[in-house]
Amino acid sequence: MTEPTQTVVEDMSRSDALDRLQRHGFVGRVAFIVAGRPMIMPVNYLADGDALVFCTGEGTKLSSLRGSAAVAFEVDDSRPLDHSGWSVVVEGTASEITDPEELKRLRRGPLKSWAVRPTAHWIRVTYEHVSGRRIPAH
Amino acid sequence: MTEPTQTVVEDMSRSDALDRLQRHGFVGRVAFIVAGRPMIMPVNYLADGDALVFCTGEGTKLSSLRGSAAVAFEVDDSRPLDHSGWSVVVEGTASEITDPEELKRLRRGPLKSWAVRPTAHWIRVTYEHVSGRRIPAH
Repeated sequence: MTEPTQTVVEDMSRSDALDRLQRHGFVGRVAFIVAGRPMIMPVNYLADGDALVFCTGEGTKLSSLRGSAAVAFEVDDSRPLDHSGWSVVVEGTASEITDPEELKRLRRGPLKSWAVRPTAHWIRVTYEHVSGRRIPAH
Repeated sequence: MTEPTQTVVEDMSRSDALDRLQRHGFVGRVAFIVAGRPMIMPVNYLADGDALVFCTGEGTKLSSLRGSAAVAFEVDDSRPLDHSGWSVVVEGTASEITDPEELKRLRRGPLKSWAVRPTAHWIRVTYEHVSGRRIPAH
């Protein structure tokens, strides 16, 4: 029996992970809890050094994120050809953005939602823990 | 103030979603609950019509998936140029594969883990709900 090649995984520094998160556009995935079960959805996002934002439509999924909800957020990129790749995971807290001036600014921005009504609701995720991993090309 | 373009999102049939899940390789993301908080990690996976499998190393993350754990699993693909894309989300149940013959077969397969020890543990996720969404090019 042939064992698969051992995959080398390197941890990234927090600053490297934050840098990837900010430069990588635009699709990430947010994981959250609905009625005791994990849920995951892709969102278009923008990130700075303190928080990321995404917009989403009405529905059960959103209502779980409106308050101060624990979320995990992930972005990654991989190249099938040489099996290299990286991923960044943020553990954080989500809450809805309600400040009218901030909403106006966000609605003028480049984000488009995967949801039907892109302007409906904007969610901010503040970072509690940021980590990243990298698989070098081989 | 200019409103962003309305994004059109189409629901996929279950069979379309299952087809995408099986043909899309290899990176997906699994969301699960650890100590009451949502967690998310990228994994390399293989899927058939009934279940998907991935392998992962030791650690807290894995131990949450060993029993009969509720998970959500997501794959997507997007093209930034024309803002088109699709995503498939599976809600299901994860449990560790322990049958020696099946493990032998899996270890001979094409999967590589994002974890340090690729052969450590194999997790199967059976499907309870499969859904997909598509954003056509515009």
